[in-house]
Amino acid sequence: MKPPIPEHNPMRPQFRAAADTRPRHFACTVDGGIATVTLNRPERKNPLTFDSYGELRDWFRALPFATDVRAVVLRGAGDDFCSGGDVHEIIGPLTRMTMPELLAFTRMTGDVVKAMRACPQPIVAAIDGVCAGAGAMLALASDLRLGTERARTAFLFTRVGLAGADMGACALLPRVIGQGRAAELLFTGRTMTAAEGLAWGFFNALHAPEALAEAAHTLAASLASGPSFAHGMTKTMLNQEWAMTVEQAIEAEAQAQAICMQTQDFRRAYEAFVAKQRPVFEGD
Amino acid sequence: MKPPIPEHNPMRPQFRAAADTRPRHFACTVDGGIATVTLNRPERKNPLTFDSYGELRDWFRALPFATDVRAVVLRGAGDDFCSGGDVHEIIGPLTRMTMPELLAFTRMTGDVVKAMRACPQPIVAAIDGVCAGAGAMLALASDLRLGTERARTAFLFTRVGLAGADMGACALLPRVIGQGRAAELLFTGRTMTAAEGLAWGFFNALHAPEALAEAAHTLAASLASGPSFAHGMTKTMLNQEWAMTVEQAIEAEAQAQAICMQTQDFRRAYEAFVAKQRPVFEGD
Amino acid sequence: MKPPIPEHNPMRPQFRAAADTRPRHFACTVDGGIATVTLNRPERKNPLTFDSYGELRDWFRALPFATDVRAVVLRGAGDDFCSGGDVHEIIGPLTRMTMPELLAFTRMTGDVVKAMRACPQPIVAAIDGVCAGAGAMLALASDLRLGTERARTAFLFTRVGLAGADMGACALLPRVIGQGRAAELLFTGRTMTAAEGLAWGFFNALHAPEALAEAAHTLAASLASGPSFAHGMTKTMLNQEWAMTVEQAIEAEAQAQAICMQTQDFRRAYEAFVAKQRPVFEGD
Repeated sequence: MKPPIPEHNPMRPQFRAAADTRPRHFACTVDGGIATVTLNRPERKNPLTFDSYGELRDWFRALPFATDVRAVVLRGAGDDFCSGGDVHEIIGPLTRMTMPELLAFTRMTGDVVKAMRACPQPIVAAIDGVCAGAGAMLALASDLRLGTERARTAFLFTRVGLAGADMGACALLPRVIGQGRAAELLFTGRTMTAAEGLAWGFFNALHAPEALAEAAHTLAASLASGPSFAHGMTKTMLNQEWAMTVEQAIEAEAQAQAICMQTQDFRRAYEAFVAKQRPVFEGD
Repeated sequence: MKPPIPEHNPMRPQFRAAADTRPRHFACTVDGGIATVTLNRPERKNPLTFDSYGELRDWFRALPFATDVRAVVLRGAGDDFCSGGDVHEIIGPLTRMTMPELLAFTRMTGDVVKAMRACPQPIVAAIDGVCAGAGAMLALASDLRLGTERARTAFLFTRVGLAGADMGACALLPRVIGQGRAAELLFTGRTMTAAEGLAWGFFNALHAPEALAEAAHTLAASLASGPSFAHGMTKTMLNQEWAMTVEQAIEAEAQAQAICMQTQDFRRAYEAFVAKQRPVFEGD
Repeated sequence: MKPPIPEHNPMRPQFRAAADTRPRHFACTVDGGIATVTLNRPERKNPLTFDSYGELRDWFRALPFATDVRAVVLRGAGDDFCSGGDVHEIIGPLTRMTMPELLAFTRMTGDVVKAMRACPQPIVAAIDGVCAGAGAMLALASDLRLGTERARTAFLFTRVGLAGADMGACALLPRVIGQGRAAELLFTGRTMTAAEGLAWGFFNALHAPEALAEAAHTLAASLASGPSFAHGMTKTMLNQEWAMTVEQAIEAEAQAQAICMQTQDFRRAYEAFVAKQRPVFEGD
């Protein structure tokens, strides 16, 4: 498998290989083109902290340049996905901050979502148990979401006296589950059950808890074996066309797809078809 | 409960207390922070008239300044929600109007929707029986919708020779139930059953007819006991981000949420959490 | 039935009567205001070719000026809708093209979608069997979609090494079935079953294969007997408001509906109502 960009690329930033990163506030393994990011304080249901927000932001920001990652799995350790911003470590300090400090914080959390949307690799969230507050936003910022019957997703912000407008929720959630359902979840902070999440299109599928990790890995592996450059373009355009007119979107896709038609993966697929074989994509 | 804005606010407009208003073309009661607006000509299934459109517009326009309303219930008297523009009182006269008069009318009806979307209080529509034409648009312009099994919702405009483009229908309906379903309802004018409305995300829930009023009141009371300033920001941002890019929306929410983090309700929620108590929000 | 625009209109282009067109790469019949377009190479599951793309583009582009068409049915001959771009006739040559040639091709395919969205007549797609790649995009570009239990819809682009961003897919599909489901279909290229398509709002209804043609014709006939000028405005506004703010959309509809209120069809509907008759719309 070739890297998405050449190893000696002068445009490379912080890291070339995600496998070489040593995040301190979450776990990360890379194997077969798949980076698995694990929020790993299971005894607290994997909360986010100032440190983990910042580190996640930096890690996803560097991902467009990673040479060894074609898909990402985002999960929580133990039986929960993520409980969101820790009350003691985050909310307490926030109540004592100045406005510039508060804005720096909300921009940092928003930057995590921006970075997740901006990296070319598709992100598969594997969601068991608690998926709350900023944790629910990490799920929502992912491209695909696999859950379990016991996944409990809640956009809790209203419960701590805040707006549902956090990290892009008022933009992203309505497009995933519809404006009326999103309004209910954001105004009330109530839990969306796994069955609701599946029926409403939040979850792409539900799996048994013991099968979730493997299902997420299998889906990520399938994506990683696909045409990575083209996948990155799909992701770019899903974001890029968010607020375009239909006409603008069609022109934007004409350009985007013409670019993809000059990739080797397009030629490989054609040649494999003619030879009645299965194409092997290399991402260039 | 404190008012959302100070009583002696120099920015206050037409009224400070919604309870003091005496609408002539619909009924209005205010109790415990909840304004209940009732379209009340049940013998005609609560149609809209030139007068009631104008009065609804003015009433909702003044709502951002009301000191006694934190949530609104919108309902119809008797067994129906609203039959829309009255054929004799509205459609007949329209067929004889000049273009400037027609535009003044369509802008007035659109202004009702604009005012419903622009007020900070969440609006819960309680929908039983007939919910048709402009009545269906009042339901759609609400934030949350509770229905009954016998609710019959129809965007009837095509049946009177008009476009489905009325009061924002072509923008709002696709975001609530999806573009394909919205196209069908708007092109055909057919009735959406209550079951379809629930499955498609138009209704947040269905209740028995005799339980609908109380369910709507309970939901409104729950919203009224929440952080009203933050709820107003949630509503503002759900509108504001409608046509933003993802990146713009995230920045907009960073600013909006930073503002909410300087409210007393945020501090109250934190202190209640630390004290293992339930927070009491006051809306400032 | 009057034509949508006068026969001797100086603004008329390529054709006035669609019945007079003799497309070479698909079949077209016009009857009772309904044009039925049939992709007709059933032995290959009705693939698209360079020729048929171009001819479909031109045919739909002329449709705003057709005097004899008030609704369109789009279908495939035999048991399939459309298998998309032919591998041998399209994909092979594309792998050998220059960038300007590729962009000319992707713009041509996008222009088919633009023309389908821009014509005032509602388009009903009748979808049985295979509905794949660019074929799935023709279905998606239609206004209403009727399917069968055996309809298999797949946005296959990723399977040939391309992006899901093709002919507007990344803009249109999320608005029809939701962002999360669209991402899954576009990243994986997997088949959406008919049951999924119905539950997710891609299909407006499913019919038995032997009943599909008649169901599509009945729906189209119902649309054709409606207020065609107003239907055209509904379609225009569904497109036009795609990326407007809520406020802009409401003003746009105030103008659009005021225009429709000066049509004779509006007056006809009112007079029929008063006379307790069924209105007969004439499209002006």
